Amino acid sequence: MKKVFCGIDLGGTTIDVGIIAEDGVILSTEKMPSFVERGVDDVVGRIVNAVLACGKSVGTAFSIAGAGIGVAGLVDNQNGVLREATNFPGWINVPLGAKLQDVLKVSVTVDNDANVAALGEYVFGAGRGYPYLMMVTLGTGVGAGLIINGEIYHGAYGAAGEFGHITIDKNGPLCACGRRGCVEAYVGTSGILRTVKERLPAFPKSRLAAVDVETVMPKDIYREAMAGDELARSVFFDVGDNLGYGLGNVVNLLNVQRIILGGGVAAAGDFIIKSAQKRLDMMSLNNSETPVKIVPAELAEKAGIFGAASLAMANL
Amino acid sequence: MKKVFCGIDLGGTTIDVGIIAEDGVILSTEKMPSFVERGVDDVVGRIVNAVLACGKSVGTAFSIAGAGIGVAGLVDNQNGVLREATNFPGWINVPLGAKLQDVLKVSVTVDNDANVAALGEYVFGAGRGYPYLMMVTLGTGVGAGLIINGEIYHGAYGAAGEFGHITIDKNGPLCACGRRGCVEAYVGTSGILRTVKERLPAFPKSRLAAVDVETVMPKDIYREAMAGDELARSVFFDVGDNLGYGLGNVVNLLNVQRIILGGGVAAAGDFIIKSAQKRLDMMSLNNSETPVKIVPAELAEKAGIFGAASLAMANL
Repeated sequence: MKKVFCGIDLGGTTIDVGIIAEDGVILSTEKMPSFVERGVDDVVGRIVNAVLACGKSVGTAFSIAGAGIGVAGLVDNQNGVLREATNFPGWINVPLGAKLQDVLKVSVTVDNDANVAALGEYVFGAGRGYPYLMMVTLGTGVGAGLIINGEIYHGAYGAAGEFGHITIDKNGPLCACGRRGCVEAYVGTSGILRTVKERLPAFPKSRLAAVDVETVMPKDIYREAMAGDELARSVFFDVGDNLGYGLGNVVNLLNVQRIILGGGVAAAGDFIIKSAQKRLDMMSLNNSETPVKIVPAELAEKAGIFGAASLAMANL
Repeated sequence: MKKVFCGIDLGGTTIDVGIIAEDGVILSTEKMPSFVERGVDDVVGRIVNAVLACGKSVGTAFSIAGAGIGVAGLVDNQNGVLREATNFPGWINVPLGAKLQDVLKVSVTVDNDANVAALGEYVFGAGRGYPYLMMVTLGTGVGAGLIINGEIYHGAYGAAGEFGHITIDKNGPLCACGRRGCVEAYVGTSGILRTVKERLPAFPKSRLAAVDVETVMPKDIYREAMAGDELARSVFFDVGDNLGYGLGNVVNLLNVQRIILGGGVAAAGDFIIKSAQKRLDMMSLNNSETPVKIVPAELAEKAGIFGAASLAMANL
């Protein structure tokens, strides 16, 4: 029987399950709503059913050698415990790994979704061949996963990778975390909206002058940037520039080889990546021989199941 | 025969050699001038003589199981090559490890002095029990060594640990590296002198008003701080505060457990550590369960030989 791996992406609204071969071929997938409010055992039961359904559809020529699960929250990866998570109210210290393992009868590895996505990109995506990398996911907040020596880097107590709260200007704008000048204060959604608001008076002809800056989404601003709006372009240029300062700190401290950019705002990739790359090149020391490239993520919405399956492979 | 290890600290002016037992007892030491200008083979010859003299003095009950050497410069640690170093003009791609190994007939590991000092403090000094730590050496510049999972962290190409060039204020003062607002621009010697100069007008009664700010040394400023001079105290307070911002970035990104402070300026430890600790506590996320303490280095001028001997032990 050929060994295959199960990747589970547990999100606040959706559960994705996939059976993936070692060469990265997806053999089967299932997708369903999370229904988090129904409680842990209900959710675990539905994950199990999805895995079994996937297993059935790939047939008896394959044997699931292990499973991985990525979840947005604070994870104790060593013990497979979801310690807490904003999207899962009331789920405190849930032994997700043990619960799934009991029923599935294979080893189950649990990790944070940002870490899992970074591992997925390293094994199957834009990070292949770069065992020292960081994947940054831009969205409302800024998530990050570090791959060091080909493995997820957790730090001493699993709290590593808070790239969004790297300070690039100690006197900078207030961040949601209460500190000043964090990367997230510039490149997170609210930072982007703040910048639009600040600059509107200087760009009276901008089409963004007509939108409600309290409710406009980065993708709407992106559309205007694509259409040539100068305000919108200047905003994304600065998102990239500030991201570049933060990336410079990471590259100088950790000597990583590659940066992968994912998430909603990263759709504005061209604008952001160009200015981020320019700033990073200016910030990096010891960068001339082997410059660090910023590249868009490749796995898109499949990053979760690819990453979680990679987790299972890594822990075999 | 009991196994012992040889630690070599090759500096621009002095070579220190020590034979150290696994429990950290120093059995023998030698110290001599480097005479770098006499060329590689002369220096290597004198290191070998010093090692042999040390070996002779510890006697035949001990056998040297390996040697380590720390040197201030860019080191290719995997191949034992000193690629280049400011203090060793003309020494380009010197295979220090192989040269010493040929004569000493034991395995010789080469690493950068800041990395070696960090490893020494981890194995025998202020970092015992903390496998995730950073040691920062304050001086003219800012050196740093990262210990990750109990080992020196080199990054993808040996260029990791540039803590001195972490940006904490992208609009901040100019650093010697040409960038703005690096940690070193605040806590390196020239940053300290700049701060004194900037503040003199506000402290006309300061005893520092009488000194030549172009030539005064941080230790003179420290003496005045100890004597109660308010300008001197405010300067060291800010050195610590800015250091704390940089350390916050490292703690949030890497989830290290301990920071060790060494070097000349660190003599002003009380002033610097207190304000650095206060700022770090404010900057750290996920820090409440296991707060990161900043502590002074313990090995002082012995860090080099302890660290280099630890390098040999680690690579046995």
